Amino acid sequence: MLLQTCAVAAACLAASLPGVAGQTFQRLGTCPDLGCILPPDQQDFLPGQEFDIRFEIHAPQNGSEAAVPNAVPDANFKATITKVGGKGKGKGKGTSPESIAAFFGRKTEPALETWTFSWYEDLFARDARKPSVVRVASRAYRRVALYEPGDYVVNLEYTYGGQKKTTTATWTVRPLATKKKAKNVIFFIGDGMTTNMITAARLLAHKTVNGRYQSLLALDGFPVLGHQMTHSIDTFITDSANSASALYSGHKGSVDALGVYADSSPDPHDDPKVETIVELLSRIWGSAWGAVSTAHISDATPTALTGHSRRRSTLGVLVDQALNGVRNYSWTKTGGPDVYFGGGAEQFIPGPGSFQGKDYYQEFANQGYSVSWNRTALLSAPNNKKALGIFCKGTLPVWLDRHIFPDHVNSLNNHPSGANGPAKDIPGLKDMTLKAIDVLHARGGSKGFFLMSEAASIDKQMHAMDYDRALGELLELDDAIRATIQKLEQMRILDDTLIVVSADHGHGFDVFGSSDTKYAAAQTDPRSKRNAIGVYERSGLSQYVLPPPAGTSYGTGPNFPLNWDPRYVLAAGVVAHPDMRESHGVGPRPRAAAYIGGPGQAYARETEGFLVNGTLPTDQLQGVHSLTDVPVYAMGPCQADFGGTYNNIDVFFKIAGCLGLGHGTNRTSRG
Amino acid sequence: MLLQTCAVAAACLAASLPGVAGQTFQRLGTCPDLGCILPPDQQDFLPGQEFDIRFEIHAPQNGSEAAVPNAVPDANFKATITKVGGKGKGKGKGTSPESIAAFFGRKTEPALETWTFSWYEDLFARDARKPSVVRVASRAYRRVALYEPGDYVVNLEYTYGGQKKTTTATWTVRPLATKKKAKNVIFFIGDGMTTNMITAARLLAHKTVNGRYQSLLALDGFPVLGHQMTHSIDTFITDSANSASALYSGHKGSVDALGVYADSSPDPHDDPKVETIVELLSRIWGSAWGAVSTAHISDATPTALTGHSRRRSTLGVLVDQALNGVRNYSWTKTGGPDVYFGGGAEQFIPGPGSFQGKDYYQEFANQGYSVSWNRTALLSAPNNKKALGIFCKGTLPVWLDRHIFPDHVNSLNNHPSGANGPAKDIPGLKDMTLKAIDVLHARGGSKGFFLMSEAASIDKQMHAMDYDRALGELLELDDAIRATIQKLEQMRILDDTLIVVSADHGHGFDVFGSSDTKYAAAQTDPRSKRNAIGVYERSGLSQYVLPPPAGTSYGTGPNFPLNWDPRYVLAAGVVAHPDMRESHGVGPRPRAAAYIGGPGQAYARETEGFLVNGTLPTDQLQGVHSLTDVPVYAMGPCQADFGGTYNNIDVFFKIAGCLGLGHGTNRTSRG
Repeated sequence: MLLQTCAVAAACLAASLPGVAGQTFQRLGTCPDLGCILPPDQQDFLPGQEFDIRFEIHAPQNGSEAAVPNAVPDANFKATITKVGGKGKGKGKGTSPESIAAFFGRKTEPALETWTFSWYEDLFARDARKPSVVRVASRAYRRVALYEPGDYVVNLEYTYGGQKKTTTATWTVRPLATKKKAKNVIFFIGDGMTTNMITAARLLAHKTVNGRYQSLLALDGFPVLGHQMTHSIDTFITDSANSASALYSGHKGSVDALGVYADSSPDPHDDPKVETIVELLSRIWGSAWGAVSTAHISDATPTALTGHSRRRSTLGVLVDQALNGVRNYSWTKTGGPDVYFGGGAEQFIPGPGSFQGKDYYQEFANQGYSVSWNRTALLSAPNNKKALGIFCKGTLPVWLDRHIFPDHVNSLNNHPSGANGPAKDIPGLKDMTLKAIDVLHARGGSKGFFLMSEAASIDKQMHAMDYDRALGELLELDDAIRATIQKLEQMRILDDTLIVVSADHGHGFDVFGSSDTKYAAAQTDPRSKRNAIGVYERSGLSQYVLPPPAGTSYGTGPNFPLNWDPRYVLAAGVVAHPDMRESHGVGPRPRAAAYIGGPGQAYARETEGFLVNGTLPTDQLQGVHSLTDVPVYAMGPCQADFGGTYNNIDVFFKIAGCLGLGHGTNRTSRG
Repeated sequence: MLLQTCAVAAACLAASLPGVAGQTFQRLGTCPDLGCILPPDQQDFLPGQEFDIRFEIHAPQNGSEAAVPNAVPDANFKATITKVGGKGKGKGKGTSPESIAAFFGRKTEPALETWTFSWYEDLFARDARKPSVVRVASRAYRRVALYEPGDYVVNLEYTYGGQKKTTTATWTVRPLATKKKAKNVIFFIGDGMTTNMITAARLLAHKTVNGRYQSLLALDGFPVLGHQMTHSIDTFITDSANSASALYSGHKGSVDALGVYADSSPDPHDDPKVETIVELLSRIWGSAWGAVSTAHISDATPTALTGHSRRRSTLGVLVDQALNGVRNYSWTKTGGPDVYFGGGAEQFIPGPGSFQGKDYYQEFANQGYSVSWNRTALLSAPNNKKALGIFCKGTLPVWLDRHIFPDHVNSLNNHPSGANGPAKDIPGLKDMTLKAIDVLHARGGSKGFFLMSEAASIDKQMHAMDYDRALGELLELDDAIRATIQKLEQMRILDDTLIVVSADHGHGFDVFGSSDTKYAAAQTDPRSKRNAIGVYERSGLSQYVLPPPAGTSYGTGPNFPLNWDPRYVLAAGVVAHPDMRESHGVGPRPRAAAYIGGPGQAYARETEGFLVNGTLPTDQLQGVHSLTDVPVYAMGPCQADFGGTYNNIDVFFKIAGCLGLGHGTNRTSRG
């Protein structure tokens, strides 16, 4: 992780450190040597997928890797590429190594770039404030592509300490896939959603009789099941940004990065990019595409479809990239989404949150979008126009609050116009998804469409350790999936549509019993409240599926709990949490609001419940992501490809293969 | 849960309680009414699968369900059965209800049985020591079967409080499956194994380069993946006993029960039984069968293959049942296992642990078994004889101790002969499994075989919260699977063999980062040790796959970690745990040994690490099982049946279907 970048190396120099190899921190995760190739060794490409290349030469100035004092990074490095087993016919297919420029037909070498950065080699160095400083020389080749399947070897030769050094990377271009087998793709993402959570959601909403479920989740009906590995390119725990990029491009990245291989330069928008599925789809077939999310639409999972940034927090830029494409370099332009529904009005209201302070409602409207601020407007928006729907500031209020605790929703100050007061008439994930299908089907016509629909607050509520709210979001996702399948069937396009449901990563959550809330409340000693929990044979059955007390009705329909507040609630937890007080069961106020106070403070506002010391560093105030593989559900054309165990990048290759996006020539639908 | 049973009701009477419905405790989980049918409503049967029926009439003497004081259970209850849509041809196929005795051709009604039991309606009642007492009248019909697919409705009519009452159960007999499509079945069970654990084991043993795994688990290569739901018949958290019975028979049961529907009688061996897969296989095809486990062979997962007991702790009886079949009733006898390998010498050495104090080594030898006490003997045992292998008392020492901390193994007092001193030359799961295949292949001949092979200590070490030891067991399982596939291929029987790998239930485990053990050790304040943990981008990469310091070698080969003790270890946890101290990383002593002290005591012998208060009741000293669905991997004949999401009972029906065990007539291989 980069600590800082310096214009002048001298400003960053620090004393040498004892030799320790970084692990908590890394100089550049994809670069164990001092010569760096991006994309690095072992990466896979779709034929014809456009990407950037960057080479970096690192010259450590101090620290455990500095074999030579005051080293200057070798600006005369040479980089070549050769196709393994190439037939020698025509440009780029020779068996002999060619320079990068020659291979890709560039008449001049790109400019040399130099910078300096520093990093901490480990926690001791951080505590002692002794960074290691690195000087860098670099060149970047923009917007290239490889068209012929097979392996390519990239060699980087440089000098360090008077010695010749080589770094090698092998890139694999996967087989051609030119035939479009699915007309449409709908990719549902349950952010942070694991099998453990799906099991718990089923328990909340569906009743068993002597072990047999009387109804099931929509997910349970998918014919094909797989598992995908979520790790980032350089760390085994990931975040939503680069994991989304992996799902959408077939290229892993680093935590916090969207659609790029993270380099070490200070500029977050010059990192080498990779073309995404909607960029490919727009370029090759001219299909329609859209994104729907319960998060702010500038959040990582939606913006990874079009975003290319080392920092997911550059929200205004990411919204502009979605609409206008990358501005600072030549790159595929999709022409903007046909559908863009979610929260995040801050990136649209003219002001500090929007790109260059502009009015992005107006920017979208200028390009022919209808603009909706509530469900009523959304449902009446014309289907033949591009459609923007921004329904509040920040994250959309969660299903449980919209349906069970509406006072919460009405007390917020989040109107999408920027005016004071709460957003009203807020659509749910189902509303947004079904409308998106109408618009995309109309606008895509014979070219079909790609839709990404995200239940973002499974993750966000898991971070807050508010399991009921998180599982409510999961049930809303399942409801949206069920309604989608029905709608596609009514529209007679179900057989033409590949539906994939997955997650980006997990949280370490599970249910382990039940808790008798009446008994817990009767214990005056907080520690004794733990004895309200029943495990194994004392876990009992789900009481959420039994009718609530007379006079109470949630009116939320089948496939949702009848009672969110039974006497016996689920006893659940996460493996990684800060100091907290645990009182199982749904509270009237969001638990996230209870997170006040700084490091070391107990879960301050939660006054009920028993104390549990945290398992996380004391500066972490919420739950964190976990390692686990996550499930993949598939139905429709190409569904059989999705069975078994694979990497998250393979999800992209399976979808892209089904859409016929792997071409041996530079294919554009616009000629 | 039954509290006690009383010969005389008066001894159990207690004051009435306020009306509260039990959940932590249940009167009888499958019986919400006062008329009980076992098997209960919503159960599925294989055609021809033998089972018992029991009816119970409950008369609560006090408590919230006692509408009538001093009620006497109606001994004149009537029970009928009718096939829905029956064609009326021949006995048992009529559309009119027939009495149970008539339908199943019994000339006389079974004897009336009566007893009394008591239970606590909730935790308040338990604390106040105020049980609810129930008098019972019951009849049991033994060893019946249903042969025609379709639905059957069972009606139980009784009188309570002067009013006529009815309880109804619908039973479904699944379609016929008479064709044996797989010659052999090998069913690997990772006890307590979840997808989250599999992901962590992969991280420990296999290296990534820029996100691409350079090698993978054997599990990762399975073509078909599914999920199964593990809940018991009456609680959403289960144990290994009834979940194994569900996998082996298609019938869920209650926690602690093996091969029976739990009734309310005091005798643990009179509960209504269901025929298991090896009982069916022996009866119908005469195939060979065997069980291998790293647990004591009398543990639930192995004994569920043949066991019929309300209490899994009746260990001596369960071993006798495996060899000789059920003694107290007429029932299918398998003739004993062809292979029986594991620990648990206590049930073989003449003494308090063995059935009737007999020498079970001799009992097995008398029936023609070779008896092995160590690996050398095991590998040289003849393949054409039935083979018993008992390698120690209790659980087999785990892989990590056998390979990395042999001093532990040598300091135990567990020799299988009963003599003082440690068991030596202990085989691993791979040794046992490969030898089992040799014996079963030889003895099964053209009739093939069924083998269950269990990695039991994934679960046992997860209970002890010793993640390294648990994951070592998982890697040993994967190694055994890999070697099995190779062996079957060499023997040219891979294509004839259905291999299924699954779990019985899960634990709420996951990895959430890494921990810098050097930094943690340097912190004098235990709370600050938490700050050694790196999450997200600070989780780094697996250091277990890097060569250990010069001079150290574990010599455990590929597919296992090169270094079990790197500086940066996994930060992992479970959601449900007692008070404990957490210091990540493998310790030289088993963590389970640290469990001393009674309720409320912190993880006493673990003096290192930071304190984490427990999330479990204060009398729970170990981790507990969790809710999550668990993975199912399949390859071979019928593999496609195993994709998607289903119940644990469906695993039985898929395997039994593949073995052609669903017959429309009473089929025996012995005529």
